[in-house]
Amino acid sequence: MLSRLPSLDKVRLDYKCVIPKQLAIPHVTKRSTITASVASDVADKFPNTSNAKAVDFAAADAFSGKALRVGAVLSGGPAPGGHNVLCGLYDGLKKLNSDSTLYGFLSGPSGLVDNQYKVVDQAMVDAHRNQGGFDMLGSGRTKIESADQFERVKKTVTELKLDGLVVIGGDDSNTNAAVMAEWFAAQGVKVNVVGVPKTIDGDLKDKDIEISFGFDTATKLYSELIGNVMRDARSGRKYYHFIRLMGRAASHVALECALATRPNIALIAEEAFEEKMTLGQIINHMADVVVARHKAGKNYGVIVFPEGLIEHIPRMHTLIDELNNTVLPKLDTPTPATVLKALGPDTAETFAMLPADVQGQLLLDRDSHGNIQISRIETEKLLISLLTAELDHRTEYKGKFDPVSHFFGYEGRAGLPSNFDCTYCLALGLTAASLINGGHNGCMAAVQGLTSPPEEWVPRGVPITGMINMEVRHGAAKPVIKKALVELGARPFGLFKEHRDSWEVEDGYVCVGPLQFEGPCSMNPPITLLAEQE
Amino acid sequence: MLSRLPSLDKVRLDYKCVIPKQLAIPHVTKRSTITASVASDVADKFPNTSNAKAVDFAAADAFSGKALRVGAVLSGGPAPGGHNVLCGLYDGLKKLNSDSTLYGFLSGPSGLVDNQYKVVDQAMVDAHRNQGGFDMLGSGRTKIESADQFERVKKTVTELKLDGLVVIGGDDSNTNAAVMAEWFAAQGVKVNVVGVPKTIDGDLKDKDIEISFGFDTATKLYSELIGNVMRDARSGRKYYHFIRLMGRAASHVALECALATRPNIALIAEEAFEEKMTLGQIINHMADVVVARHKAGKNYGVIVFPEGLIEHIPRMHTLIDELNNTVLPKLDTPTPATVLKALGPDTAETFAMLPADVQGQLLLDRDSHGNIQISRIETEKLLISLLTAELDHRTEYKGKFDPVSHFFGYEGRAGLPSNFDCTYCLALGLTAASLINGGHNGCMAAVQGLTSPPEEWVPRGVPITGMINMEVRHGAAKPVIKKALVELGARPFGLFKEHRDSWEVEDGYVCVGPLQFEGPCSMNPPITLLAEQE
Repeated sequence: MLSRLPSLDKVRLDYKCVIPKQLAIPHVTKRSTITASVASDVADKFPNTSNAKAVDFAAADAFSGKALRVGAVLSGGPAPGGHNVLCGLYDGLKKLNSDSTLYGFLSGPSGLVDNQYKVVDQAMVDAHRNQGGFDMLGSGRTKIESADQFERVKKTVTELKLDGLVVIGGDDSNTNAAVMAEWFAAQGVKVNVVGVPKTIDGDLKDKDIEISFGFDTATKLYSELIGNVMRDARSGRKYYHFIRLMGRAASHVALECALATRPNIALIAEEAFEEKMTLGQIINHMADVVVARHKAGKNYGVIVFPEGLIEHIPRMHTLIDELNNTVLPKLDTPTPATVLKALGPDTAETFAMLPADVQGQLLLDRDSHGNIQISRIETEKLLISLLTAELDHRTEYKGKFDPVSHFFGYEGRAGLPSNFDCTYCLALGLTAASLINGGHNGCMAAVQGLTSPPEEWVPRGVPITGMINMEVRHGAAKPVIKKALVELGARPFGLFKEHRDSWEVEDGYVCVGPLQFEGPCSMNPPITLLAEQE
Repeated sequence: MLSRLPSLDKVRLDYKCVIPKQLAIPHVTKRSTITASVASDVADKFPNTSNAKAVDFAAADAFSGKALRVGAVLSGGPAPGGHNVLCGLYDGLKKLNSDSTLYGFLSGPSGLVDNQYKVVDQAMVDAHRNQGGFDMLGSGRTKIESADQFERVKKTVTELKLDGLVVIGGDDSNTNAAVMAEWFAAQGVKVNVVGVPKTIDGDLKDKDIEISFGFDTATKLYSELIGNVMRDARSGRKYYHFIRLMGRAASHVALECALATRPNIALIAEEAFEEKMTLGQIINHMADVVVARHKAGKNYGVIVFPEGLIEHIPRMHTLIDELNNTVLPKLDTPTPATVLKALGPDTAETFAMLPADVQGQLLLDRDSHGNIQISRIETEKLLISLLTAELDHRTEYKGKFDPVSHFFGYEGRAGLPSNFDCTYCLALGLTAASLINGGHNGCMAAVQGLTSPPEEWVPRGVPITGMINMEVRHGAAKPVIKKALVELGARPFGLFKEHRDSWEVEDGYVCVGPLQFEGPCSMNPPITLLAEQE
């Protein structure tokens, strides 16, 4: 009885992704003639792999290569499409040479360190095509940093005689991939390390990496939920919804969802930072909008913001720094009163305006290093508390302010991937296979031209060193891929800025509805990507 | 730029619902010959409208009727499909006689009392086909109870010369429809009142009303989110997700979602009540499952329950009663310590086991009558707190217990309706139009055979009095439509019971994915409905 109805996850197993022409036909890879610039301190750190020439694909007579042994690892939080990267990698390796073997390391990078793996076979791949999650292999957040860990990874790679290693992860994991690529080259271990750009936050990108996979599916799910809440708000006409979204470092998710659904207010953390906004200014603006809407007969609204907002407000940032580094280490049992005395005048003012429960949270809920756990602060409740107090002071406001808070997070990380993410990820996997076959160490797999039809998408290999900067962390220079932030001068934010005032009182709500796998809306790319490529 | 991509809400405007044959062809309505039983106290209260004969539809030569003037009102929280009821009503009235007029009362029942309306025209209807929310007219929760309100409704009805009034709402609103139908009949006002069964909670149903509209879309959205969280849990393998769902009186939503997604534990409030479960038993069982999963190498899981769970645990129910009626009225500034002394021994034991913050919430967060606001209790946090404490006592358990809490509510009330809800609601509206045309006062519009293809669905009119019971409320006998609870002896719960043990340790997770409007899964009915009709 429970199996009587057709089940979408099973139906999706049979979805056939379009394969970009350059990957569908027999091809070879070749280094581009153009050398990109790599900072000299990076070149010093990566002497063997800082040859920053991209890898292009060219037509060939037949698919061919020697039988390759390749390992793959999923790293960090899941993002929709990860399984299709593995499927593409498997398909690509088998097409190049049917005797190739794909080793899937279990539970993230720790599987690589501990040599825990499954040999990926056709049945495994076919059971996970177009499915969400990272559960085919599991994932994890182990960082490969110590000399011992590097030795153990080397042991795994040499024991399995790997020709290639594919690291599917975010900025940290891809930095790690570059470091491993360099280290293996220096050690004379012949393995080609290839990175694949994953993160639903969308902050791993540059001129060559147009978007990270998972962003499209996740933002479409969050936009569905926001749109539903908007339609609910406009039906009952009595609630203000405060919606916190993913994105601690960057606000791409909030921006994409804002462009898709058009909330009354959307806060972009990068703007708060650049414009040196204070919490007071943000709350004042919100109160202005609530009052204006009330005058227009609207006692409801929808306000969207990223989880990283608080950290990006400069005064909050300073307060948290001062608490972490100066005040809290000096106090045995900090209370709001003792903390207030110990803070400087500016930071004391910021601390004093926070609601009592947030003050308490800042003082009590600290991590093992004694640092404040900013991600634990429920920004939506902080904003509601401050706005409620501000509205009490607005004598011209007679409305009933009835706030509801939401956090949309885990729901978006592991859903069935969109056709866009399915197709993109399969192409990324195929690209990774060809890069390894071509002997390219230290590249990230890239697929470009993503707002064109998928047939026209262009596979490339992009040297990871070209994305790396050296930054001082804990007194030592470390290679880092900078998270790509929302650029206030670029088109996606410009588009938002152009329209947002008109959405404050005149509702522009769009109920985008659930992600569709068939029909006219089934291959819409992210709006921010479209805006960037216009 | 923002309008460049096809938009699903616009695409959905053109979706053509299948119209059941009996509604598509010219038809007349006729009273059935079978009289259903109405309780004698209900018959006494409804002397004019307790003629409990259903209304059937029969083929006729042509669509025909006089030009009708009909009012419609949306009542209570939005449910996906409400706009299609209005579309069906409009389409039906116009087909019967193109000079008919539909008046849409604004902001719920208060629009009827205050004679605030819009004349519904073709453009309004066409802009809202297959759209979610109740925003075409707005909704509200005003109860029409006082003599003054009844007089004002009568004034509205007579001023607009209404032939019919359609009330789209839940159990309360449909009871109200029956009371109005009786009152108008007694007053000699010739208006036919028709109810339409709405509620995402699914608790307005009986042998004739197979399901309320909105339940299908809402549970599919919640199931999507639960399935995504499951896939996330199985990828990272380190979180226990506690998911609270809608359903204060009845657990249909939780049961439907459990059958669709197969969580490790799903709690059904009706079972907790019937089996006189204690919180301690529930927590113990959860701890057993967490420990067993840990032994199987699984430190993750998904647990689902309805918001009404706490109220249905008999000892909690008794505690809350005693607090509301005996203890709290006696104490000026209740504290956990003074309350503990004032409670009887059994209830004191129950109170003592609650975490401090829940105790505080019970004592402080009360409504204007001084009653505890049970719906404010975050059940997910209560369960997490108690389970964490219990696991600390389990010496055999060495796992790291990392819980995450969720509440899925508003997101599901106003989304784009499923094809099932679109089709069902359009048919309900068409049925309501024909019932008014046939002169049937005091019926609920019904469409039966809902697991057959829509062509075969059977429209009927069901006398609301047949669903009513007289119950004593605040010392007076009041007509009430009993909320339909999950029946522990019926097939849907049986199906769940049959399988649930196997889902506790062996994951049965189904990632059902987003609601689809095209393709093989686009007309799946709710599983509980299918189980009931097998």
